[in-house]
Amino acid sequence: MVHKYDLRVRYSDTDKMQRLHHAAYVEYLEVVRIEFLRSLGISYDALEQSGYLLPVSKLRLNYRQGARYDEVLTFETRVALDSRVRLTFRSEIRTADAEIATAEVELACIDCVQHRPCKMPDELFEALQNASS
Amino acid sequence: MVHKYDLRVRYSDTDKMQRLHHAAYVEYLEVVRIEFLRSLGISYDALEQSGYLLPVSKLRLNYRQGARYDEVLTFETRVALDSRVRLTFRSEIRTADAEIATAEVELACIDCVQHRPCKMPDELFEALQNASS
Amino acid sequence: MVHKYDLRVRYSDTDKMQRLHHAAYVEYLEVVRIEFLRSLGISYDALEQSGYLLPVSKLRLNYRQGARYDEVLTFETRVALDSRVRLTFRSEIRTADAEIATAEVELACIDCVQHRPCKMPDELFEALQNASS
Amino acid sequence: MVHKYDLRVRYSDTDKMQRLHHAAYVEYLEVVRIEFLRSLGISYDALEQSGYLLPVSKLRLNYRQGARYDEVLTFETRVALDSRVRLTFRSEIRTADAEIATAEVELACIDCVQHRPCKMPDELFEALQNASS
Repeated sequence: MVHKYDLRVRYSDTDKMQRLHHAAYVEYLEVVRIEFLRSLGISYDALEQSGYLLPVSKLRLNYRQGARYDEVLTFETRVALDSRVRLTFRSEIRTADAEIATAEVELACIDCVQHRPCKMPDELFEALQNASS
Repeated sequence: MVHKYDLRVRYSDTDKMQRLHHAAYVEYLEVVRIEFLRSLGISYDALEQSGYLLPVSKLRLNYRQGARYDEVLTFETRVALDSRVRLTFRSEIRTADAEIATAEVELACIDCVQHRPCKMPDELFEALQNASS
Repeated sequence: MVHKYDLRVRYSDTDKMQRLHHAAYVEYLEVVRIEFLRSLGISYDALEQSGYLLPVSKLRLNYRQGARYDEVLTFETRVALDSRVRLTFRSEIRTADAEIATAEVELACIDCVQHRPCKMPDELFEALQNASS
Repeated sequence: MVHKYDLRVRYSDTDKMQRLHHAAYVEYLEVVRIEFLRSLGISYDALEQSGYLLPVSKLRLNYRQGARYDEVLTFETRVALDSRVRLTFRSEIRTADAEIATAEVELACIDCVQHRPCKMPDELFEALQNASS
């Protein structure tokens, strides 16, 4: 399954190079992951309220071409289950005309009390199994 | 008492206008307030750990001239106690050559459980009384 | 005319107080202004390309209640023409349940070469006249 | 040569997980790179003014442990010249007690007019050669 989501480059996220700042992609990718989960029926907010956190453990970004203010970026994202604890989102980021960047973000499920790795809840695991097949 | 503090304009805080983005001033002012408190012997971190929060209740900013990347901004800040609950920081922001902005930020003391206004702890109140005289 | 626009609180914009950070409102207000202009047929991007900038000259924010992660904030915004050079946007920010904040943002039209105040282009002026009546 | 630089975790960079948000590391790494260059006698600002840009082409981050508000992070950074066009900074990020993260950031020199790869200026090349040996 490929999840598609569009985000427009915000003015406050541009920099003096007149392109989207490279750190802002990391924030946009987070929005996209959360909307991907929402499209699977998973609320990240509810997940945290039930005691789980999904912090980022690894980040890989390759920037091909700069994105400009007000451009609409399309994120095409796939998810893979690495284990009961870890999952990875891979995204291709494009405008209508150009390949902008590719990204790989690994998350680890931890509990919100001790911040130790733990198995993700069944509901999330099953939703991700379906989405990754 | 006037507290002086310097911050350098970060690249990621510039925008396509090639100036410091207007929202970034709000973050810089927060750094300055926290360093002001630290200079009075007050750790904002310890304050939160003891159950108090100091969220911003009002923000007033007048922008006179844009600040550029890598410029050092000098913040001259005074604090006023408005009550046992509220305090206001007033800052003048300058470079070596120019007046950049003025700011007024009002904070309210609330408790971290119910998020309701409460009297600030004595240690903070006394430190602010000294600083505001 | 009242412009209505919804924005969802992003995870990266929350802070350790577990509320939307007070500086992030300033970025959200910018998104809202740009969408307001777009709804009037004005592209802020095209405006900059034609040689004009609209930097913020004054900011007034009153925070009533914190906004939480993933909440949808509704911005109800009016615009006023202060002169041929200056305009002010006034917003009320709400969730379904609560009044979150009010904001007033004044912008000044400047030219992109010398960064000096200048009359805004007729197309923008007329669109704002219609919107402010 | 190892460049050491300390940065304190800003409140606005924390998130609802009560840790430094994972995107903020990317901004901190940029500050560190610019200070590294400054320690070599290279002003990144002057470099841009002379017509060169150093956008990020690759980003690799491994997050080991969360960083908390107000903690001081120590960045130990090495630089490597990959060619006349590309360079890579590798950082280890620590608090007094813990290994927080490791990062690898590749930059490419481009010209500010056409945004095409170009040889970096000699002064930068020589400074980096010395620093990477």
